[in-house]
Amino acid sequence: MGKIIIGVMGPGEGATSLDTQLAYELGQLIAQTGWVLLTGGRNVGVMDAACRGARDAGGLTVGILPTDRPIAVSTAVDIPIYTDLGNGRNNLNVLSSQVVIACGMGTGTVSEVALALKNQKPVILLNWSEEGQRFFQSLSPDEIWVADRPETAIQLTHTLLSAPAT
Amino acid sequence: MGKIIIGVMGPGEGATSLDTQLAYELGQLIAQTGWVLLTGGRNVGVMDAACRGARDAGGLTVGILPTDRPIAVSTAVDIPIYTDLGNGRNNLNVLSSQVVIACGMGTGTVSEVALALKNQKPVILLNWSEEGQRFFQSLSPDEIWVADRPETAIQLTHTLLSAPAT
Amino acid sequence: MGKIIIGVMGPGEGATSLDTQLAYELGQLIAQTGWVLLTGGRNVGVMDAACRGARDAGGLTVGILPTDRPIAVSTAVDIPIYTDLGNGRNNLNVLSSQVVIACGMGTGTVSEVALALKNQKPVILLNWSEEGQRFFQSLSPDEIWVADRPETAIQLTHTLLSAPAT
Amino acid sequence: MGKIIIGVMGPGEGATSLDTQLAYELGQLIAQTGWVLLTGGRNVGVMDAACRGARDAGGLTVGILPTDRPIAVSTAVDIPIYTDLGNGRNNLNVLSSQVVIACGMGTGTVSEVALALKNQKPVILLNWSEEGQRFFQSLSPDEIWVADRPETAIQLTHTLLSAPAT
Repeated sequence: MGKIIIGVMGPGEGATSLDTQLAYELGQLIAQTGWVLLTGGRNVGVMDAACRGARDAGGLTVGILPTDRPIAVSTAVDIPIYTDLGNGRNNLNVLSSQVVIACGMGTGTVSEVALALKNQKPVILLNWSEEGQRFFQSLSPDEIWVADRPETAIQLTHTLLSAPAT
Repeated sequence: MGKIIIGVMGPGEGATSLDTQLAYELGQLIAQTGWVLLTGGRNVGVMDAACRGARDAGGLTVGILPTDRPIAVSTAVDIPIYTDLGNGRNNLNVLSSQVVIACGMGTGTVSEVALALKNQKPVILLNWSEEGQRFFQSLSPDEIWVADRPETAIQLTHTLLSAPAT
Repeated sequence: MGKIIIGVMGPGEGATSLDTQLAYELGQLIAQTGWVLLTGGRNVGVMDAACRGARDAGGLTVGILPTDRPIAVSTAVDIPIYTDLGNGRNNLNVLSSQVVIACGMGTGTVSEVALALKNQKPVILLNWSEEGQRFFQSLSPDEIWVADRPETAIQLTHTLLSAPAT
Repeated sequence: MGKIIIGVMGPGEGATSLDTQLAYELGQLIAQTGWVLLTGGRNVGVMDAACRGARDAGGLTVGILPTDRPIAVSTAVDIPIYTDLGNGRNNLNVLSSQVVIACGMGTGTVSEVALALKNQKPVILLNWSEEGQRFFQSLSPDEIWVADRPETAIQLTHTLLSAPAT
């Protein structure tokens, strides 16, 4: 059987320092739990921070890159997948994650949340605006969860993984 | 030079009757203006209604299908593009449209709006909830427009097409 | 119902002058027959020549581009589809063509012939080496046809389109 | 830095028993060398056999699946990547492998060899027909290598990995 893979999605260049701090902690916690971390793999923002957190905690990291070759890849990615799909790779990110944690907001992240919901994947929002939370809760009330800090996101992930028929 | 291609995105099975009525009118107006209509190409909801509107007005219609072969294609699609990309085709829909009109709301449509914004494409929202409008206006104030009816969406499209550096 | 779409695939920068001359004639003949021409859409080699031939004969041309925006597009493309898929767009080229004509040889073209065969699409080889013809005839004897000039390719296409269950 | 990833491509349902025996040995040798194995991930033919070989030798296996969810996945895949790209995922297979070993022949495998060459990836052919070897050697003499058994393929891979500018 395959390993449990948890996706952490979030802004790249547009990430706030709080976004990257939370992403680093998420990466650490995911690795400490024994799960594999999956991100968009670039060397900026939430992708990079989450990978560094998981790497520092001894975990395994997968990066789904938009490019066709090693350009601007996080040095903390163990398994780089080169897609040459540009933002089209966002769909792969969510399909390959058993639970998606969206850490911070940006247009790419919003597309990933929407694609996750389209594919009936559970999504946990962390560090999102009130407007963003309210919008997605109105759109897909059964698949959207809100966490107030990384530990809560991990607890929710445990619960979602043990739920039947996810 | 290529023709002017305007995308109409919206729910499939989840479309309301108002969504499809507005989509039909959008299709008609786009065709009457001499533009090519692009949709997701399936035989349901906004995609189908917009194509039928354009077809009835003598226009040309392009459908970007999620499948690898002719399954559940709108009979009003002139140029079916079979992608075998599933929801990954949503990125192609917005990249190939000079302006994106999102008619009605659904998770797939939301992903298209977000991907359009990620690619700096102007997006016009028609028949969206207050929460949806407010969320995307807060996310990308410079690229989001709201129309109250199909005619307004077409006027906005004219303006956006004539703007420099679109 | 959708229009009949015929794909012409072939080398870009690596095309020979014979490749592009044959591609121009194929484009003309496809347009004169009333079919839509589909190519990879770039402004070089077989793609560009076929589109110019079809355009000069008053036909409609679709280009499936590897890029996310108008870069190096043939000026004879009417309907540009921007995929941002790089060479991943080759699969779309063949899925969206009812018959594939491979005019000249190159690694990209070979991938398109193989993907067409994988998807049970009939393929006509024009201006191929003996080794190439022999290899693909040994691989998929029922789906590979060889033409000695554009007119023969068009006649074969007529036959293939009228065959049952293609 | 990322791990070294070696791709083994080959037929699924159409694999011969020699193809799968060689694939199993390739998987074992790749794992014993400490490399990560990448395949198309399905539970048939060369993909499945290579993954089982690597798994039995204690290695790590990545499967790039054509589907959007766990359907017909090899039970020996550790990291399943769900692409929903159909055969479009073949481009990802080769882009994400530092060296591609094509074990046995089929239309999908031929598309992967061609896409690898298009992307300047070195390709090693194992258990290919004379016609196939000769065709690809004529097409891309600098990037095609032929191995007579799995051990030779692994030696070639060592050499190719240590070559400059791969």
